[in-house]
Amino acid sequence: MKCSDLGEFGLIRRFAPRFALAADDPRYGIGDDCAVLPLSTDRVQLVTTDLLLEDRHFVRRWIAPHELGHKALAVNLSDIAAMGGTPTAAFCSLGLPGDIEVAWIDSFFEGVEELAKTTGCPLLGGDTTKARDGLVINFAVLGEAEANRVKYRSGAQVGDILAVTGYLGDSAGGLRLLQGGHPTSGPAETPLLTAHHRPQPQLAAGHCLAVRSAVHAMLDVSDGVESDVRHLMDRSRVGACIELTRLPYSPALQAVSNAHQWALETLALTGGEDYVLLCTIQADAFDEVARALAQETGTTLHPIGTITDTDQLVYTRDGQPATLSGHGFDHFR
Amino acid sequence: MKCSDLGEFGLIRRFAPRFALAADDPRYGIGDDCAVLPLSTDRVQLVTTDLLLEDRHFVRRWIAPHELGHKALAVNLSDIAAMGGTPTAAFCSLGLPGDIEVAWIDSFFEGVEELAKTTGCPLLGGDTTKARDGLVINFAVLGEAEANRVKYRSGAQVGDILAVTGYLGDSAGGLRLLQGGHPTSGPAETPLLTAHHRPQPQLAAGHCLAVRSAVHAMLDVSDGVESDVRHLMDRSRVGACIELTRLPYSPALQAVSNAHQWALETLALTGGEDYVLLCTIQADAFDEVARALAQETGTTLHPIGTITDTDQLVYTRDGQPATLSGHGFDHFR
Repeated sequence: MKCSDLGEFGLIRRFAPRFALAADDPRYGIGDDCAVLPLSTDRVQLVTTDLLLEDRHFVRRWIAPHELGHKALAVNLSDIAAMGGTPTAAFCSLGLPGDIEVAWIDSFFEGVEELAKTTGCPLLGGDTTKARDGLVINFAVLGEAEANRVKYRSGAQVGDILAVTGYLGDSAGGLRLLQGGHPTSGPAETPLLTAHHRPQPQLAAGHCLAVRSAVHAMLDVSDGVESDVRHLMDRSRVGACIELTRLPYSPALQAVSNAHQWALETLALTGGEDYVLLCTIQADAFDEVARALAQETGTTLHPIGTITDTDQLVYTRDGQPATLSGHGFDHFR
Repeated sequence: MKCSDLGEFGLIRRFAPRFALAADDPRYGIGDDCAVLPLSTDRVQLVTTDLLLEDRHFVRRWIAPHELGHKALAVNLSDIAAMGGTPTAAFCSLGLPGDIEVAWIDSFFEGVEELAKTTGCPLLGGDTTKARDGLVINFAVLGEAEANRVKYRSGAQVGDILAVTGYLGDSAGGLRLLQGGHPTSGPAETPLLTAHHRPQPQLAAGHCLAVRSAVHAMLDVSDGVESDVRHLMDRSRVGACIELTRLPYSPALQAVSNAHQWALETLALTGGEDYVLLCTIQADAFDEVARALAQETGTTLHPIGTITDTDQLVYTRDGQPATLSGHGFDHFR
């Protein structure tokens, strides 16, 4: 059997049991956006790591080096945000093809540095080696959070409202423009490219949501909402219903999708790399949480569905059952 | 300018200043085996990360998957050992070519698991993705140490004795057997292959040395003694003199080198991947430290030279000046 037969999540399910912690272990390991380790009676450390490979996660000629530096750090900070944490330190491993220009590397680290400074997450170490073929970029990021405020994927409760903290599909729209060889510099196109190349980790929103007990579960949207809702369902042992008419689209994505006749729902559900937060909130507290999030961080909370007591993910359109053929992103398929 | 023109250490010198910490920052960043972050008044956290690329750091057909799993974790644990720490958690990013067998991955993680268990360093997370070409393996490892017992590369003092905690060149000898297509299964060959494929991180020795104030500086031998002594010199602003007749060779390496007419000194000084510890010790305390290390951990401390007040690395043979042409390993050259 090849690893491509199992898929990314099949692989993780297969080897994770080897590293299961004892039931009384205070540490939380594989299965969420970050691992969680006790620091003191009331503080925990968060740890996450993400590997980006050239031509798999990015195409070098499509992304400026400073944007790639930003993005490689940002996707890890998004994992810290998803647990409600504050980043504290970053570590970067780089595999560099021998022909890469030093100016390129300077610019890459300029992008890292800028985001590291604005988020208070200094680069404190790493490893550098020559790569035979494509660029290899791995970041590991540490963070901290209040022990009793960390949000897991496993906390969703039946009746919760499922919500996202921003537009869906912009990043996927930007990627599709690049893949199709379409113009990328128009007033509607630029925001999509920016969403794809310079995702903004929602640290303030993550913290604001994490300190509220009505927020039961949280993760970030990296694989695509469909896939990420399934992660939530798996860990929380619940089902979910997504109302397709509530999926939030940016004006830019609507304009570009109209022009190219793209299916917005597919982009929103399966595109991935949105790096907004997906959370479940006790229904009677939703309005209060949404108001607080808007006031404290300027972030809009978009309700997109509910948590159900089945083990199914179902879609409705205007309340009527609907079907979809798309699937979330799996790196091995 | 290409990155191959700068070399690995030139690259690090170039981008590290971007991430320099403020003078009063309690954290220690780029420039040692691990970064050091305060945990409490008397404890610090250690963080290290290492990237291994197929055909650069290993050849898949030469190393069993469980050995590669062991080695990928071991090289990080060696960095924790070099600072005098105890490992606490590991994180593994894997880039897997699509055709790799699931059985291979199972065996890889068997090797990780075994070393994780014996060293108390559980795998608590990671990332898995498909790789286009070769395997990509990145580990990030966390550890802890007593704040006032951590040993840095920068602590060497003029007059210190330079010492290593084990034989040099075995790993390089094993690699040379593989590269030359020589038999690898004889009684002298097997220990060299084992040294190359299953290095043992010297955690107990690192801890024993770290708690002794007469030990002034420490790092692990990964690039090769020559290169690693230069790291020590750079950080401590000292020189060093290595007495070539004191380089410790295993009986196995001596036998195999005799048979193949290999230059032992070159293997010992520039081969690298020994993963023994290199330390500098106040001369009048050397015997006492060596005795304690032997009693507590069964490890022999081999004096190989002294720290000098020049900025040069010089060699002597039986006390007479000697020259060498070899150089330590640089991933970009």
